[in-house]
Amino acid sequence: MATCIHTSRLETPQTDSKHNDHPCNYLKYCSQSFNDFVLSNPLSQKCIQTSKKDPIFDKKSKPHEEQDEDLLWLKMKKEARLDIQQEPVLTKYYSDSVMMHNSLESALAHHLSVKLSMSSLPSSTLKDIFSSAISSDEEIIQAVKEDLIAVKQRDPACMSHVHCFLNFKGFLACQAHRVSHKLWSNGRKTLALVIQSRVSEVFAVDIHPGAKIGKGILLDHATGVVVGETAVIGDNVSILHNVTLGGTGKVSGDRHPKIGNGVLIGAGTCVLGNVGIGDAAKIGAGSVVLKDVPARSTVVGNPAKLIRRKENPNKMDKVPALIMDHTSHIECQFSDYVI
Amino acid sequence: MATCIHTSRLETPQTDSKHNDHPCNYLKYCSQSFNDFVLSNPLSQKCIQTSKKDPIFDKKSKPHEEQDEDLLWLKMKKEARLDIQQEPVLTKYYSDSVMMHNSLESALAHHLSVKLSMSSLPSSTLKDIFSSAISSDEEIIQAVKEDLIAVKQRDPACMSHVHCFLNFKGFLACQAHRVSHKLWSNGRKTLALVIQSRVSEVFAVDIHPGAKIGKGILLDHATGVVVGETAVIGDNVSILHNVTLGGTGKVSGDRHPKIGNGVLIGAGTCVLGNVGIGDAAKIGAGSVVLKDVPARSTVVGNPAKLIRRKENPNKMDKVPALIMDHTSHIECQFSDYVI
Amino acid sequence: MATCIHTSRLETPQTDSKHNDHPCNYLKYCSQSFNDFVLSNPLSQKCIQTSKKDPIFDKKSKPHEEQDEDLLWLKMKKEARLDIQQEPVLTKYYSDSVMMHNSLESALAHHLSVKLSMSSLPSSTLKDIFSSAISSDEEIIQAVKEDLIAVKQRDPACMSHVHCFLNFKGFLACQAHRVSHKLWSNGRKTLALVIQSRVSEVFAVDIHPGAKIGKGILLDHATGVVVGETAVIGDNVSILHNVTLGGTGKVSGDRHPKIGNGVLIGAGTCVLGNVGIGDAAKIGAGSVVLKDVPARSTVVGNPAKLIRRKENPNKMDKVPALIMDHTSHIECQFSDYVI
Repeated sequence: MATCIHTSRLETPQTDSKHNDHPCNYLKYCSQSFNDFVLSNPLSQKCIQTSKKDPIFDKKSKPHEEQDEDLLWLKMKKEARLDIQQEPVLTKYYSDSVMMHNSLESALAHHLSVKLSMSSLPSSTLKDIFSSAISSDEEIIQAVKEDLIAVKQRDPACMSHVHCFLNFKGFLACQAHRVSHKLWSNGRKTLALVIQSRVSEVFAVDIHPGAKIGKGILLDHATGVVVGETAVIGDNVSILHNVTLGGTGKVSGDRHPKIGNGVLIGAGTCVLGNVGIGDAAKIGAGSVVLKDVPARSTVVGNPAKLIRRKENPNKMDKVPALIMDHTSHIECQFSDYVI
Repeated sequence: MATCIHTSRLETPQTDSKHNDHPCNYLKYCSQSFNDFVLSNPLSQKCIQTSKKDPIFDKKSKPHEEQDEDLLWLKMKKEARLDIQQEPVLTKYYSDSVMMHNSLESALAHHLSVKLSMSSLPSSTLKDIFSSAISSDEEIIQAVKEDLIAVKQRDPACMSHVHCFLNFKGFLACQAHRVSHKLWSNGRKTLALVIQSRVSEVFAVDIHPGAKIGKGILLDHATGVVVGETAVIGDNVSILHNVTLGGTGKVSGDRHPKIGNGVLIGAGTCVLGNVGIGDAAKIGAGSVVLKDVPARSTVVGNPAKLIRRKENPNKMDKVPALIMDHTSHIECQFSDYVI
Repeated sequence: MATCIHTSRLETPQTDSKHNDHPCNYLKYCSQSFNDFVLSNPLSQKCIQTSKKDPIFDKKSKPHEEQDEDLLWLKMKKEARLDIQQEPVLTKYYSDSVMMHNSLESALAHHLSVKLSMSSLPSSTLKDIFSSAISSDEEIIQAVKEDLIAVKQRDPACMSHVHCFLNFKGFLACQAHRVSHKLWSNGRKTLALVIQSRVSEVFAVDIHPGAKIGKGILLDHATGVVVGETAVIGDNVSILHNVTLGGTGKVSGDRHPKIGNGVLIGAGTCVLGNVGIGDAAKIGAGSVVLKDVPARSTVVGNPAKLIRRKENPNKMDKVPALIMDHTSHIECQFSDYVI
């Protein structure tokens, strides 16, 4: 999966520095054992051959349509107008946050700066920071759009793109992280850490600015999510609330999990240490994962056990992050479950 | 249990529409298997016969006394006066939030609007919304009172009703939900979702406005609680922090848990899918529950296992939600526990 | 361990009342069975004999150096100046919070009052409360310094002391608790509870003001931490996010855990009831602990199981709270782990 997405992106030329920072290149940061999981897995080949039927790949193609130009933004403004008609009491909220802006980037910079401001760091200062980071960065803009589409597609409680944009703290925390990660990568570590801290206070989501996060991300509910400095998250990943991608030990260096593409991580799960979670894997709610998880497998429990193996992997047309099925695994092999 | 409470309420006539929305009618929304648990259970019969000794029923009777008129509100003002005498530095806080109001409803609308306001949604706007939703709705007012009494009775850390009213974010999140649920039920979905979002940001409690919640609810500590759109929570339920009543799959429709009356759910527990938790059941801390739980039983663990069976059910005079005993089950059947 | 720290402290004379309140005297509050764990354990003796090689003791000696005078505060101002040079946009933030103050105590009182203020409890009122509580209390000032040093030493994501001071909500929540605990101990319960409530809303950390907390504390990430009224936490303890030190039952009285010195508690763990966790014990992420845990042992799982026993205890030169190693135990005895 990682391979095919990577390949398709090579068509658009990128500067070397950006290319190296790209979250999709997470394989570089993985331990050898995790590379084995992913690269030797037939998933990558199959993805290239049958991309039209691959829900991850299908999702990827949509933003390309919507890029020409700002169809998504026009749609969001239309949704906003309908909301204001139905609920005039929210006119100022929608006007300040959506209607008075001429682009998604401008609206996002404004919305985040209002949410994250404090008396000694006013929203005007923050807006300048967010605007300059987002407006010139096609990578971030594309990721914002794919995240909006991902939330709308995967979360049945999401009524519209503008609803996600205004109200989903997981979405907003993720976009603030994209800015703080850019600042961190450009050496502006002090500022990046202040933004991380404000996001942790305002949204209860604590993502270290060093973490690399792909596109098409759903942080559902989001309270209590913790992602460490050297964690890497692939594309089209769905992560529920109270999920920890944590480190171990007090030594610096590569010490956090690497999450493949299309992974679903259930609520209250801890993944600790520099372990790899293979593409299209599913981790059940409340699990504690301390070892590598093979691609297309399902693990559950504390400590986590493998309940779908290579002989019966997660099907390619049912990528866990997109299907959001948290419970069907109990019907097959979860024999320990005795209620 | 559901039956007897329901019966007692029929004495006060209700409009049909309200009646259908009543959270106590959660049985309607349950799967057949869950109905079986509850209706076939001797609990309901016993409850009718021995209501005087039933702590749930005893609790229910107290609000009726206090309804004539606003004894609870007078008590809270008295508590507030004592607090101000002891701590003059809090005079403005208590004055703005309690003393200057002539009813519990007015004070609650003000307190919530101050907590949940933001620059583009000022407290004056929110206060109008909360006031008009609460002041005309006897169902909500009664629920607010029963929640205040429940917290004071069950939480040994709660010093007074006014202490709960001012400082307990679980209580405040629950009352804000009652308003957003009313707005949602009346078709004002956009506004309901904005309130949900603000509650998630300010209190770290994420309850979808579609969820139906009974009376006499204790959300203890409350951080990280997530309740999905089609969840139903009965009366006199105690839920600790970091509890998830979550869905499964990305398809809309009935996909969240149904919690009976008198249930106690321990900290950090996930209940996922359209499963039923029977009346007076207890779910131990850190459990993962993916199947129906019979009434008056105790389940613990990940995955959850039944440790009190029908032969030795939770006793009727020890309804878990009221007793708040989180640990005594380890003394009987939790043989797996080896420290 | 408790003994030796206690002994060293006797060199500085203390009033009797303060001495009795000292969190380090947690053994007084422990059940007999827990006292047995700690006092009969060779750890205490060894600590006295080999204190120079004991990382806990080594840590304790550093603050003494820095006491003469305010070396730590001078260092923090230097760090702040460097940060402002690199990031002029943060000048106001650093100036208001650090540079304009002439002591750590003044800066802390200001920073907390800004974070925790609300319209009906302005920052000026809160600052007076925090200032008068902190400035005259050597016990609190020493604890603040040891906490700053602990976070910097143990958390590889912490870049400087001023970074911790400004941005770590776990550190700030802990210091606000030190003030609310002092108010609580002096009978100002109403005010103490208001501060607890604001900390729970602003930082998502809920520590009852009655809880006794030692020095050298790291609350890492901190979201969702809950500590009950009668809990006691020793010195040099590291606690991750979503950790509960909770009670059981609705009866008042001693009902929460007692945590020894040098303990490490992993993310998402529940410790419930009046149980004792012995010195230098380690509790793995996602554990549910309902029984006493012997000193220098490691427990993991739900329900928790002992995986390091007296024959193979945690080594004295590797105190879990200082090493922050969350995962190495799976290599030895965690045979249940099958991925």
